[in-house]
Amino acid sequence: MNMEPAQFILRPGDIDALVYGASFLGSGGGGDPYIGRLILKQEMEARPALPVIDPSAVPDDANIIGVGAVGAPSVLIERLPNIDSLMYALERAERHSGGKIDAIVPIEAGGLNATLPLAAALRAGLPVVDADGMGRAFPETQMMTFSIHGYAASPLFLVDDYGDCAIIETKDNAKTDRWIRPLIDAMGGAAMAAAYPLSGAMLKASAVRNTISTQLGIGRTVYAARREKRDPVNALIRHFRDHKDQPRFAARLFTGKVSDPKISIEGAFNIGEVRIADMQNPDDICKITVKNENLIARRRGKVLAIVPDIITVVDADDAEPITTENLKFGQRVEIIALAAPDVLREPRALAVLGPRAFKLKYDYTPLEELHGSK
Amino acid sequence: MNMEPAQFILRPGDIDALVYGASFLGSGGGGDPYIGRLILKQEMEARPALPVIDPSAVPDDANIIGVGAVGAPSVLIERLPNIDSLMYALERAERHSGGKIDAIVPIEAGGLNATLPLAAALRAGLPVVDADGMGRAFPETQMMTFSIHGYAASPLFLVDDYGDCAIIETKDNAKTDRWIRPLIDAMGGAAMAAAYPLSGAMLKASAVRNTISTQLGIGRTVYAARREKRDPVNALIRHFRDHKDQPRFAARLFTGKVSDPKISIEGAFNIGEVRIADMQNPDDICKITVKNENLIARRRGKVLAIVPDIITVVDADDAEPITTENLKFGQRVEIIALAAPDVLREPRALAVLGPRAFKLKYDYTPLEELHGSK
Repeated sequence: MNMEPAQFILRPGDIDALVYGASFLGSGGGGDPYIGRLILKQEMEARPALPVIDPSAVPDDANIIGVGAVGAPSVLIERLPNIDSLMYALERAERHSGGKIDAIVPIEAGGLNATLPLAAALRAGLPVVDADGMGRAFPETQMMTFSIHGYAASPLFLVDDYGDCAIIETKDNAKTDRWIRPLIDAMGGAAMAAAYPLSGAMLKASAVRNTISTQLGIGRTVYAARREKRDPVNALIRHFRDHKDQPRFAARLFTGKVSDPKISIEGAFNIGEVRIADMQNPDDICKITVKNENLIARRRGKVLAIVPDIITVVDADDAEPITTENLKFGQRVEIIALAAPDVLREPRALAVLGPRAFKLKYDYTPLEELHGSK
Repeated sequence: MNMEPAQFILRPGDIDALVYGASFLGSGGGGDPYIGRLILKQEMEARPALPVIDPSAVPDDANIIGVGAVGAPSVLIERLPNIDSLMYALERAERHSGGKIDAIVPIEAGGLNATLPLAAALRAGLPVVDADGMGRAFPETQMMTFSIHGYAASPLFLVDDYGDCAIIETKDNAKTDRWIRPLIDAMGGAAMAAAYPLSGAMLKASAVRNTISTQLGIGRTVYAARREKRDPVNALIRHFRDHKDQPRFAARLFTGKVSDPKISIEGAFNIGEVRIADMQNPDDICKITVKNENLIARRRGKVLAIVPDIITVVDADDAEPITTENLKFGQRVEIIALAAPDVLREPRALAVLGPRAFKLKYDYTPLEELHGSK
């Protein structure tokens, strides 16, 4: 397969910005950025250049596959992601398809799941596509643009820490998810996965584009603001609003102190609710409902932001994103929201990954409407 | 693959005897004999001759695979076993191995799991081997002579009612079992399976032999006794004792009325305890502990029989075996025990399928020692 030349080369100096951006888009999920950064730094010591290709440069008949970690994010902190297992998932998928894999696409954005596919691509000597299947992180297998376009997650390969493998072949991506959850539990709460084998044509029809460059743009904006002692959150909001290709609405929702993070592991998900209280007036509380990711932020009964729009909690001091499993009592934080990519706001997408898909008793309202501004 | 001529041809007239024998060996498990009989009768209407080959006639390089139903027996009564799904498991296994399957071996004895492999063999136009992996029924995947000889259950194929499939590839058969249980639950409590791909040489080294002919012998003995108005249980005990090739000890353990069958579905198993009370003296109780199969029979603290020896409850009137999920309050029953095949009584077998493998607080004592006779 002849890919066109890479759009750009990702280098070790890009890692910090990339991980910041991925973690911001993770919406509280997508895995721990500290671990994601470590893994990518380690891989890039031996292989310091990763070709990133634009989806438009991928031939229609190329073989692409998504890879990443699945399971409860809090388990993936205690049991470090096993890159050998991830490589085995990739190898097993290639052997199963009978054709060579030409490029890797991340399944989602997030501190860990944006870096694991890059680590795998580096090790396999493959390019990575500047795209993903979510443009953020979501908890379930079928909550992907690939699935919304009718493409199968199957065959899906799950590999545990010992290189043992389960292969799921269904005609229904939601069923695939229902099958892998108890299996991931039996594997210890997390596993490495390869899924969504796509042709280049399928990828181009369905992927969220520019995910890697978007992550780099977010990270570089924040790092520049920090260097220049400007407010990173204001810089980010302007960066999204003024983006020349893809302007997006973003807003600061709330500032306060984490008063009561109740997150537990249920069915290989992190489930719970986080309360953040105003520093001056502790009765003024913003509540965030969590299923791996932040799904809805409410204050005094009013919805501030709702899935699929991105809700990210950042440290009030340095604007570093904090994943839900890392929220601790007493942390001073800000809640930031960002409009989801347009493709996630279409009715057929909302049916799969909107509020009702999470059994929330709200319809989707775009962030910019909730905040009376565009 | 050139198999030697069949040892015998199984015909529709053999079904009743076969199902009786299979159900007797099922030790309370192995699935419902009524459904097993129906399925085999239906298949034999179209294809009334099934070649049964002796393991010794199987070439060393033949490809053999085990098939059957897995899950809680009580679910398999409400959701009839899907032969199309079983055929898909077989077909998927063949495609996965890349080589043609030459013969089918039943995974266990039992009213349903002794007939499903024959139905699949008939439909696939394959012979069935006169053997199995248990010589009785057991609840878990690794509780098989194939496993005890070190052969992998993997790749194991599970197919649900919709033809969707999960393939398990592990290096550890007990892990395979831990993975498939929650998966079977997610599939609705039961699934069709193909597992233990074996060469002819592996089969000959590890299988329990003569399982089908043993079943026929048991069934014919009982049917003859019924016809001649002799006591079927006495006839069976003599049949086992006087068998010219494989004499086995058998005993009548207890006669009474089912007073309290407590069987529930837990983790895709039938789990519980059954109490059977003496008709004259209701305080004289025999308790049977169940995990799909009858594991131990105790009376006044004394062990009457213990796994892997076979414990079967039969109707006191006609000696028809009653599977655990079909036990009802008030049934008049007899409890019969039969020595397990020698291969299940070896130390390496007892480690996997003896009392301690079921967390029973007893060591194995052979049935003939418990009854002071040989």
